[in-house]
Amino acid sequence: MVYRRYFEAAVSRLKDERRYRVFARLERDVEAFPLANWHRDDGSVEPVTIWCSNDYLGMGQHPDVIAAMVDTAGRVGAGSGGTRNISGTSHAIVELERELADLHGKEAALVFTSGWISNLAAISTIADLLPNCVILSDASNHNSMIEGVKRSRAEKKIFRHNDLAHLEELLIEAGDRPKLVVFESLYSMNGNIAPVADIVALAERYGAMTYVDEVHAVGMYGARGGGVCEREGVMARVHVIEGTLAKGFGTMGGYIAGDAVIIDAIRSYAASFIFTTALPPAVAAAACAAVRLLKRRPDLRAAHQRASHITKHALAAAGLPVLENGSHIVPVMVRDAELCKAASDMLLDRHSIYIQPINYPTVAKGSERLRVTPTPCHTQAHIANLVESLVDVWHTLGIPFVAPPSHLHIEEKSDGKCSYPEIKLAAQ
Amino acid sequence: MVYRRYFEAAVSRLKDERRYRVFARLERDVEAFPLANWHRDDGSVEPVTIWCSNDYLGMGQHPDVIAAMVDTAGRVGAGSGGTRNISGTSHAIVELERELADLHGKEAALVFTSGWISNLAAISTIADLLPNCVILSDASNHNSMIEGVKRSRAEKKIFRHNDLAHLEELLIEAGDRPKLVVFESLYSMNGNIAPVADIVALAERYGAMTYVDEVHAVGMYGARGGGVCEREGVMARVHVIEGTLAKGFGTMGGYIAGDAVIIDAIRSYAASFIFTTALPPAVAAAACAAVRLLKRRPDLRAAHQRASHITKHALAAAGLPVLENGSHIVPVMVRDAELCKAASDMLLDRHSIYIQPINYPTVAKGSERLRVTPTPCHTQAHIANLVESLVDVWHTLGIPFVAPPSHLHIEEKSDGKCSYPEIKLAAQ
Repeated sequence: MVYRRYFEAAVSRLKDERRYRVFARLERDVEAFPLANWHRDDGSVEPVTIWCSNDYLGMGQHPDVIAAMVDTAGRVGAGSGGTRNISGTSHAIVELERELADLHGKEAALVFTSGWISNLAAISTIADLLPNCVILSDASNHNSMIEGVKRSRAEKKIFRHNDLAHLEELLIEAGDRPKLVVFESLYSMNGNIAPVADIVALAERYGAMTYVDEVHAVGMYGARGGGVCEREGVMARVHVIEGTLAKGFGTMGGYIAGDAVIIDAIRSYAASFIFTTALPPAVAAAACAAVRLLKRRPDLRAAHQRASHITKHALAAAGLPVLENGSHIVPVMVRDAELCKAASDMLLDRHSIYIQPINYPTVAKGSERLRVTPTPCHTQAHIANLVESLVDVWHTLGIPFVAPPSHLHIEEKSDGKCSYPEIKLAAQ
Repeated sequence: MVYRRYFEAAVSRLKDERRYRVFARLERDVEAFPLANWHRDDGSVEPVTIWCSNDYLGMGQHPDVIAAMVDTAGRVGAGSGGTRNISGTSHAIVELERELADLHGKEAALVFTSGWISNLAAISTIADLLPNCVILSDASNHNSMIEGVKRSRAEKKIFRHNDLAHLEELLIEAGDRPKLVVFESLYSMNGNIAPVADIVALAERYGAMTYVDEVHAVGMYGARGGGVCEREGVMARVHVIEGTLAKGFGTMGGYIAGDAVIIDAIRSYAASFIFTTALPPAVAAAACAAVRLLKRRPDLRAAHQRASHITKHALAAAGLPVLENGSHIVPVMVRDAELCKAASDMLLDRHSIYIQPINYPTVAKGSERLRVTPTPCHTQAHIANLVESLVDVWHTLGIPFVAPPSHLHIEEKSDGKCSYPEIKLAAQ
């Protein structure tokens, strides 16, 4: 191939910078989650514990969710048959949209094939429909939001991450032009939660529209799983809520919820929605089952927070550098791309634990990390094993430990092992 | 909501131009395809015949495909659990990529969540990795290709649809800069097939890289369903083949196939691939079953072509304005947005036939149409019913008929009805 050298050079650059990604091939097992079978390149298979899944609540493994997928596929088939306009609007997807609108207390919802596309489509379409619009975008927004912001013809301004004073400055600067504030409720790599109520109040004061990405919060926060905005009591005041079906809800796809006329305008104008095949009814039905289930399962949300809380404390007590945050995400800092990759490899090879390295461009250079995501399915034994494995890897690779916070009270037993408060597994 | 009027105005504009889309809510039935249940807004349900599905071969309803989905969901769950890097690389998706690479005789393949994203990601990434690249893009390319072209930083030039002389002009003009020619093998709205061998030869002569979208051809053309390029014997000479799993293969997702180093570069650099959740293993397994099945089922491809051929002839013999083309797609021209919408509504209300109107922006204004897609599951009785229903709608709405081509020999029976050659249904 005539341009082969350009592609070779591009791949080599990543290898030189130690950020070439190799995907581990995993076969999950509904009976054994969070265990999965790791298929090595040599053909051998080994059970490993997954500690980095975005299936945060194990919904992808829940019998009700699987039953909805299996039943729907058996009745109506494996695909949707076309775009939403070309015979792809299934009964299942309409039901799902109703369930999502209800979840967020909004008039309407619209389902996309992914959260990535939801953000691209919705942000760019909204901004393009508002004449002379200025988009005010949080500096830490996800790639898909940045793509949506870039794709629109509107002017863009970036406010410093969660910086209300800076946001206010920009709001004042924009004067009486239409303004769209786009931000996340929970930033997935640091796990920190945005001051959503303050942002909404500020936007209201200056007459700006608000668009919040709740992909790492839906299903997991709020009385019915409506996300951080539900928990903070501001769901009704945010104009558009974007969420995913692929994390807390364990399946696939993304969505937005809001006023019917906004949803209708995006449905009618967004090319990335119009010109793509709809989600299969079986996937929509599975997602719908997960949304319905989680509306009435605060106990699962509590078990999730508890698993995360205990994991954080156990890791910190062992001197591992856990990033403090108020969420379920447990970032363990390595701060070096090569060491981060080596730590991940050693966890897999020596300890049968799967946590992929998070390197640039997902996080800034110098802030490389392992991103641990406990689920309600991780037991006390899993957590103890994780701590001991990470301690071994940190020692072996010479990654710096930190002093454990003084407020931690993890009991050290006579055999030198630690004991952690028992996690009560939620009966699913 | 403060900006409500802008969204209301945007929706009103579409209604005024008679291009506001209402999605019919359809519940397919594996036992009855191409019949489906149409759910009206008043809650009533009515069986209708779908005549516009992109599930061209009925693979979404095939027992082997459904069994793969059901079995995989039961064993490994409903979702993939994360991005490809964050535990989302399932055994099923790796197997699917191998099967697709084999289908196209390429070293590697990469699966995306949709064909739309495949084009956005692959075209923009390739062009951005080639220094000082010029993209030469066919004027009739699909929206997703245009989005990929636009998103790249490369210079863009549009050649007139399938115009080899114009393409050659632009190739010469670009001199020794890297050049990427992007085109489709089968344009879905007119159903015409590109001179792929000539385009490839031209690109080779001027040292250009070729990227072909085969979404409306994979599964349906070529000895093993590799598409038009396989049929024309140029598959090995095209650098990147893009396809979908959501049409001929009846499920969901898109893909590219090519040299391993090109695929690896796109895998490593495309944000829209990196930052999105992987296809669920159950969807990947279903798609894989369809690809495997169609590799050894030329009889299904023949039955598909035959159904389409007979439908075209029957419609033309009745004086309906069918657009001539060499493919399985049957465009019936209305050439007016309002009449097109009215024809579609009347087909559904009066004849229980579902064919959505194709209006601007999917096609140019003045070329509005009904786009009929016969499958091997449509019988002689379905075709006869379609012809009679369309004739009634054409008469009622006063849409112009055309003179039937003289070479058609459809027998007219004494009762005034026509008889068409019998379609032998392929045993699936």
